[in-house]
Amino acid sequence: MQHRIDLNADLGESFGAWRMGDDDALLDVVTTANVACGFHGGDPRTMLATCAAASARGVAIGAHPSYRDLAGFGRRFMDVAPADLEADVLYQLGALDAACRATGARLGHVKPHGALYNAVVTHREQARAVVAAVAAFDTGLAVLGLPGSALLDEASAAGLRAVGEAFADRAYTPEGTLVPRGLPGAVLHDPEVVARRVTRLASEGVIEAVDGTDVAVQAASVCVHGDTPGSVALARAVRAAVVDAGVELAAFAPAGGGA
Amino acid sequence: MQHRIDLNADLGESFGAWRMGDDDALLDVVTTANVACGFHGGDPRTMLATCAAASARGVAIGAHPSYRDLAGFGRRFMDVAPADLEADVLYQLGALDAACRATGARLGHVKPHGALYNAVVTHREQARAVVAAVAAFDTGLAVLGLPGSALLDEASAAGLRAVGEAFADRAYTPEGTLVPRGLPGAVLHDPEVVARRVTRLASEGVIEAVDGTDVAVQAASVCVHGDTPGSVALARAVRAAVVDAGVELAAFAPAGGGA
Amino acid sequence: MQHRIDLNADLGESFGAWRMGDDDALLDVVTTANVACGFHGGDPRTMLATCAAASARGVAIGAHPSYRDLAGFGRRFMDVAPADLEADVLYQLGALDAACRATGARLGHVKPHGALYNAVVTHREQARAVVAAVAAFDTGLAVLGLPGSALLDEASAAGLRAVGEAFADRAYTPEGTLVPRGLPGAVLHDPEVVARRVTRLASEGVIEAVDGTDVAVQAASVCVHGDTPGSVALARAVRAAVVDAGVELAAFAPAGGGA
Amino acid sequence: MQHRIDLNADLGESFGAWRMGDDDALLDVVTTANVACGFHGGDPRTMLATCAAASARGVAIGAHPSYRDLAGFGRRFMDVAPADLEADVLYQLGALDAACRATGARLGHVKPHGALYNAVVTHREQARAVVAAVAAFDTGLAVLGLPGSALLDEASAAGLRAVGEAFADRAYTPEGTLVPRGLPGAVLHDPEVVARRVTRLASEGVIEAVDGTDVAVQAASVCVHGDTPGSVALARAVRAAVVDAGVELAAFAPAGGGA
Repeated sequence: MQHRIDLNADLGESFGAWRMGDDDALLDVVTTANVACGFHGGDPRTMLATCAAASARGVAIGAHPSYRDLAGFGRRFMDVAPADLEADVLYQLGALDAACRATGARLGHVKPHGALYNAVVTHREQARAVVAAVAAFDTGLAVLGLPGSALLDEASAAGLRAVGEAFADRAYTPEGTLVPRGLPGAVLHDPEVVARRVTRLASEGVIEAVDGTDVAVQAASVCVHGDTPGSVALARAVRAAVVDAGVELAAFAPAGGGA
Repeated sequence: MQHRIDLNADLGESFGAWRMGDDDALLDVVTTANVACGFHGGDPRTMLATCAAASARGVAIGAHPSYRDLAGFGRRFMDVAPADLEADVLYQLGALDAACRATGARLGHVKPHGALYNAVVTHREQARAVVAAVAAFDTGLAVLGLPGSALLDEASAAGLRAVGEAFADRAYTPEGTLVPRGLPGAVLHDPEVVARRVTRLASEGVIEAVDGTDVAVQAASVCVHGDTPGSVALARAVRAAVVDAGVELAAFAPAGGGA
Repeated sequence: MQHRIDLNADLGESFGAWRMGDDDALLDVVTTANVACGFHGGDPRTMLATCAAASARGVAIGAHPSYRDLAGFGRRFMDVAPADLEADVLYQLGALDAACRATGARLGHVKPHGALYNAVVTHREQARAVVAAVAAFDTGLAVLGLPGSALLDEASAAGLRAVGEAFADRAYTPEGTLVPRGLPGAVLHDPEVVARRVTRLASEGVIEAVDGTDVAVQAASVCVHGDTPGSVALARAVRAAVVDAGVELAAFAPAGGGA
Repeated sequence: MQHRIDLNADLGESFGAWRMGDDDALLDVVTTANVACGFHGGDPRTMLATCAAASARGVAIGAHPSYRDLAGFGRRFMDVAPADLEADVLYQLGALDAACRATGARLGHVKPHGALYNAVVTHREQARAVVAAVAAFDTGLAVLGLPGSALLDEASAAGLRAVGEAFADRAYTPEGTLVPRGLPGAVLHDPEVVARRVTRLASEGVIEAVDGTDVAVQAASVCVHGDTPGSVALARAVRAAVVDAGVELAAFAPAGGGA
């Protein structure tokens, strides 16, 4: 039985003069940061500042690569040729790794962003391209994604460590998939409820589905959000409750700042 | 007395569907390639292909970072704050390093591109920012630039290896600076003349200035161009003549593929 | 029976320091130019130069808007929300119209580029978005696209003039669709054959399909290409042959420079 | 004696997923909006929304073109060739004009943004390039800028209407220039003080300089800001006080929605 869990969040998504999210607040909540690499957000100076801040607090750092789509914040599917996507992801890994090196941090994993994240759940060629980029860069990197996704499947096949994540504030179907956002009850807002779910996931490996049954979810990490004031408060509550319940919070990949 | 010289060229400056230069031809001529990193040219797939091609021929690889100016090909001075410039250069170094890693090559040096190259001849803050990025990334990297420039000065001060370059097809003043392009005779076209100059530089460390006197030039590398059919032919002729004269052609930094 | 035809080509696709296509040559061949608007190619100065050159030769000018995808040259499908796509197309129309105004030309039509062109053959929402942008900008603009496409359907429904185009160098199925590029015989290279097909289309409104039957094609314009030396020669041959056959070459929308 | 004044603000500077400024609040304060055109901020959909919102409230609309520098928010000087700058500005004017057309608004003026605004105070070639773009697009457009700037000088020389603006919250030297931001007292924060200054400018054409003398300022418009909560409150207070003082608030160029 699992008694530890990782909390991850997408950070460093500001760009130039534009701010996004409350990174400072989230860095006190999470154990892992997925850092934007410049293709959907995250200018080079923001990348440095984010790696430095994460490293200073012992938060583990991963790359959060995206389609090349600043105007769409990486939220639009792009039918990119696999060889181009592989090169695009590799480029972003290198760029973020440089920010890690310069701040004494260490790159530990990769989690695709936005529309790319969704695409590689089922899009086999794009999943393979992402994995190929990771493997070409550093076979020691973990790949973080949706349990059961083509991405994690390909990562495992390539000999990479594949790590599943759950979503703290989302309802699950009895099959273990997310209830689509449009449907009633798809998003949970009650911190107590959410915290209890995360605690059960950490200790029993299950999440209660919308029909009341328990569904096993292969997730060593739980994604929290910080794009609204409410979401930061929710993330804080989740962390507090999980710690109270005696679950250990720890990054699934070694935190930066080490070596 | 110096009996070896490096020939370098700017490569990998295509972007997406657009081609630039005759990289294949130049890779048979030079011993060192300065590879574009995406900010003025060089999309991620081009970077990979360029590193692979250079590595396959034993050509040493360096980064060719630029201001963020695709529309201007990095040829326009930008008054970028030093901290932003440092982060921009660091980002590009990491991105190119990833392409090197993925192709079994090794990043050996950094040469600023275009308007940034010109700016850091005298712009002390920007020179420092470029050097800070290089030092933060890898103190083993050499910095290639204009002899006497603020860039090389700062590189040396930071403990980095500073390497000067000469221009094969440009006339020099008795002070060792380039005759400005607008002036008559500023650009040389005769392959024999150019080759003889490179040979003398390699063997005696001097270039004949426009007034007929010899001027000492601290250059371990000579820059050749490939943007026009004529320039490729000139570069080929220079290489042949230099080899004929018994000068050893060798990269100033170890070629990729080794290590 | 139709005895006139328009020849159109995609022009102005250079960007900054990068060249694309032989616009000068094509401007002597075509009667209509589809001019890139900056999202896949066509920097602002190129747009001005292209409009000026087209206008000087009496070639009609249309906008050639694209997904926002410089790195992919607009050749990759993007799942853009209709409201964003409408705004993106409108933006490009305005930008090109300014280039027309400044050069005394007149914007006469709109033809989507690349992956957007292909998407709006069947993608109803994106087709509607493109048409909405055109209608919001100027209901006097014609819309050029594939006969039978959702785009032309929506354009007609919106009260815009819908103009179909044929492809000079492509084989057709008996159903009037293009033989997919991968298949044998999909692309025609013989100038005589191509010219004869265009002549028949202009005079009889039919193209001979791959099975030897004649298929009616609703096309007032024929698209020619100029991305390779061979394609320019082919385009020239087509023009000469069509003129020889007594077909009148004329833009489907009034040429720039007039008004 | 002047008894009316215009209040202008820079609006529509959000980009994609990133928000900037409190446009809604400012649109209730100002009589003129300078709308970003995509080169430093202002994606196409934001441009449309901003023009629609301004038009609905009778706020006059002008273009706020910038250097092409999204990452730097147009705040970094770029040494752009005049012909490129002219084309870049023209492009942005057309793009914003399309947003005006689509929302029933009317483009009335042009005010350069950020580093370009500062550059054209003294940079004669860039000032000329901006003016050339405006004149090529529509000689009926006014040009808004710093009194005494090369920009307004060139605009007048080209037969365009040149309109000076003052800064509500900035201290002036006895020579009528702004006290540089670094110096003590350079920025004013007291709404009453600021409002009194704007009222005097509107009614007497003078601003009290830091030495207590009155300096004549040729400004038919006053720039207010909305990037901080404090600045919006200040802008509101200025508007209220100016109206209380019996000064008429009116755009210097006819508001959109009319024509």
